[in-house]
Amino acid sequence: MPKPKYHIMVCTNTRPPGHPKPSCGSAGSQNLLMALNMGLMERGFQPGEVLVTGSSCLGPCEQGPTVVVYPDGTWYSQVKDEHVALILDEHIKKGTPVAQLNPDSVWA
Amino acid sequence: MPKPKYHIMVCTNTRPPGHPKPSCGSAGSQNLLMALNMGLMERGFQPGEVLVTGSSCLGPCEQGPTVVVYPDGTWYSQVKDEHVALILDEHIKKGTPVAQLNPDSVWA
Repeated sequence: MPKPKYHIMVCTNTRPPGHPKPSCGSAGSQNLLMALNMGLMERGFQPGEVLVTGSSCLGPCEQGPTVVVYPDGTWYSQVKDEHVALILDEHIKKGTPVAQLNPDSVWA
Repeated sequence: MPKPKYHIMVCTNTRPPGHPKPSCGSAGSQNLLMALNMGLMERGFQPGEVLVTGSSCLGPCEQGPTVVVYPDGTWYSQVKDEHVALILDEHIKKGTPVAQLNPDSVWA
């Protein structure tokens, strides 16, 4: 089996209820993870061609949910369900980070 | 803050006690994660210079613990505590995947 072409990492960190700091988990990242996997299937990607995994805390909790695409190392912040199609169609299929989502703005 | 130079991902997936399939978690990956972070500090890396996070199941459960280094996309299998220094000294400091650890053999 070949190495996955892309590895999409979704921060799924959660915090106890009432915790003052936000988390990607409470901002809906578990749903994103599922939507990314579903979206890959819908687009005809083979299992293992693109890997989607959950990750522990990636750091920028105030700007979550955070999604990182490797090997490009592109960081997307405040990712919403409606961004999944953009990421899959533009970045994963065409190889171009989605400018509209301000990639890497968290590092600016 | 600049983007991390490396992102080391450690599979920390666990399974219920008695589950027939092995997991990176039961093979000691949580300890690896800690050892990687400690080792980075000991080597004088600044916080955020190299990111170490836990990951959900990466797939090759029989060959865990699995550690992946991005942006290189280098997969290490059956990583043991004594390999942490090799990964940090050779790969993270010098930029060369550790040949001795048969990188990417899981994809061969």
